[in-house]
Amino acid sequence: MQIDIKLKQNSYKVFINELEKLNFDTKVVLLSNARILNLHLKTLKNKIKCKELFIISIEEGEEYKNLQTVEKILNQMFAHHIDRKSILISFGGGVISDIGGFVASIYQRGISFINIPTTLLACVDASVGGKTGVNNQFGKNLIGSFYQPKAVYCQSEFLKTLNDKELSSAMAEVIKMALSFDIRFFKFIQNIDKKLFLSRDDELLSNIIQKSVEIKAKIVSKDEKENHLRMILNYGHTFAHVIENQTFYKKYLHAEAVSIGIHMANILAYHLNLLQKTQIQEINQTLQKFDLPIFYKIPNINAFYQNFFLDKKTKQEKINFILLKKIGKAIIKDDIDKNTILKSLESFT
Amino acid sequence: MQIDIKLKQNSYKVFINELEKLNFDTKVVLLSNARILNLHLKTLKNKIKCKELFIISIEEGEEYKNLQTVEKILNQMFAHHIDRKSILISFGGGVISDIGGFVASIYQRGISFINIPTTLLACVDASVGGKTGVNNQFGKNLIGSFYQPKAVYCQSEFLKTLNDKELSSAMAEVIKMALSFDIRFFKFIQNIDKKLFLSRDDELLSNIIQKSVEIKAKIVSKDEKENHLRMILNYGHTFAHVIENQTFYKKYLHAEAVSIGIHMANILAYHLNLLQKTQIQEINQTLQKFDLPIFYKIPNINAFYQNFFLDKKTKQEKINFILLKKIGKAIIKDDIDKNTILKSLESFT
Repeated sequence: MQIDIKLKQNSYKVFINELEKLNFDTKVVLLSNARILNLHLKTLKNKIKCKELFIISIEEGEEYKNLQTVEKILNQMFAHHIDRKSILISFGGGVISDIGGFVASIYQRGISFINIPTTLLACVDASVGGKTGVNNQFGKNLIGSFYQPKAVYCQSEFLKTLNDKELSSAMAEVIKMALSFDIRFFKFIQNIDKKLFLSRDDELLSNIIQKSVEIKAKIVSKDEKENHLRMILNYGHTFAHVIENQTFYKKYLHAEAVSIGIHMANILAYHLNLLQKTQIQEINQTLQKFDLPIFYKIPNINAFYQNFFLDKKTKQEKINFILLKKIGKAIIKDDIDKNTILKSLESFT
Repeated sequence: MQIDIKLKQNSYKVFINELEKLNFDTKVVLLSNARILNLHLKTLKNKIKCKELFIISIEEGEEYKNLQTVEKILNQMFAHHIDRKSILISFGGGVISDIGGFVASIYQRGISFINIPTTLLACVDASVGGKTGVNNQFGKNLIGSFYQPKAVYCQSEFLKTLNDKELSSAMAEVIKMALSFDIRFFKFIQNIDKKLFLSRDDELLSNIIQKSVEIKAKIVSKDEKENHLRMILNYGHTFAHVIENQTFYKKYLHAEAVSIGIHMANILAYHLNLLQKTQIQEINQTLQKFDLPIFYKIPNINAFYQNFFLDKKTKQEKINFILLKKIGKAIIKDDIDKNTILKSLESFT
């Protein structure tokens, strides 16, 4: 299965379960971490033919997604005489693809890179869209670039070794996309048989990936640099970022925070008479089917509100809230008054 | 005077002596160094109207053009809540415009930037073309991006405070462009009255800048990412980089090394029956008119030859030499045999 990501420049394809053999007449840098290499290097190596395979393994975890790691990777690449014709392959989850894309974008002013995601979350989210970057002490993904891969290969075989939580939590981003853009896809998700899902059924996983990538492809094609439409992909994220910040990125997986954020956004939408309680319940049932949390106890509503302004997607004094008008249709609102927001947050105390 | 830099995306203009008033409804980050701010901040400030002007002054010199400085600048910008709508102005020579462009390209995945060069060299070279970047222990400009400014403003008023050497040496890059692409421009340079040049005559300086930028604009428009044609702009540089490397970037200004490199390339072209001695003499006279050096004593020819391979523009085992076929016409050769190169280098022992 192939999905075209059409852009003004540098269009590319996402291949789902089509990775048979990759041939390069150049050196290839494989960026990954020890755990993934232990699990999947052998499988991947059988699929890659190149002049020389240079493996760089970085520490696992969001806390290593920073400029220091970037510099270490760059130094290893220079020491190994990686040239401008070489290819970088990001082989891992979102952290690997975010760092790998960024490194590729600045190594000798840009070399080609390919994403081979090994998590469901990276398949449906991080590996498509060209956002690359790292964190610093001021926040997440604050340093980076828009840089497109040459290709993305999603292979359900690599998803078999994910634990249930890693697999299920990714559904928060999938549900986010369905809720924002496609009611039929949401109905499809509602009808997913959980046992089949947890059995890592190839066909089901590739359907989920396909539909999510198709939605994201459409958005990114229309708004590569996140001027407007693409902001809708932040549905749930405005809240999630605050939750992650307040819990020091330790208590929740990103997708779990997004799940709670979706519910928070929905409660706000309810206070603005956009959504009805029954719709919110329907959404929550779907989130909870995949064992996703929907509640976070806010310690201090005012502090939570102030934290919105730390978010980089927030320009100046305006906060963009992405809210559902109905299931399958999200809108952007930047004029909600503070009291309404505070009132809606009260449900989480 | 305005020159269009036409690109597939992100075309922009170079304005020569047209900076009257810049109005921004955003914050502006002004990146510069103490010396330039002392000389010209007052003049520039009178021309800029914005929401808030945030000045970042970095240490002067090529040795500070590295990732550490980039990180310091980024941190100051985050601490000062510079947002995605803000504009960065690089105000200085090549180091400032290279770092400034790079910082702009990775700050929150890219903000707008403007170049206001304060050296003749930066006017004719560094500020146009979208190459940004910093050095590391492996070499020059090895980390960076292709990122276009929104506009470039060359003002001859800022060039008045350059010393004679800074002013004259820039002519190496100007002569390089004339020799590679435009014999009429070379004749124009031959006829420049040196006294008038050293008097920093506004009309003469703006003519030199205009013609150089026009040539570079044409090249960059056709080959933004340096696939082929743009390589010709490296005429003299293959040698210059080795000279700079061997003298630890201390003995020669970059443009001076380029001047010697031009002569070295010409001697190689002579050994390949491309150029004649009389042409080389004519070129040398022009370089020397601007007090540019043409000779560097190579300590060890073999070591010099090996150093070609350290250059990042060198892919794999092939070295691209840019040579003149005649004055006004350069070609790229990657198949010169080693003995011919070594023999031509003997003139420099």
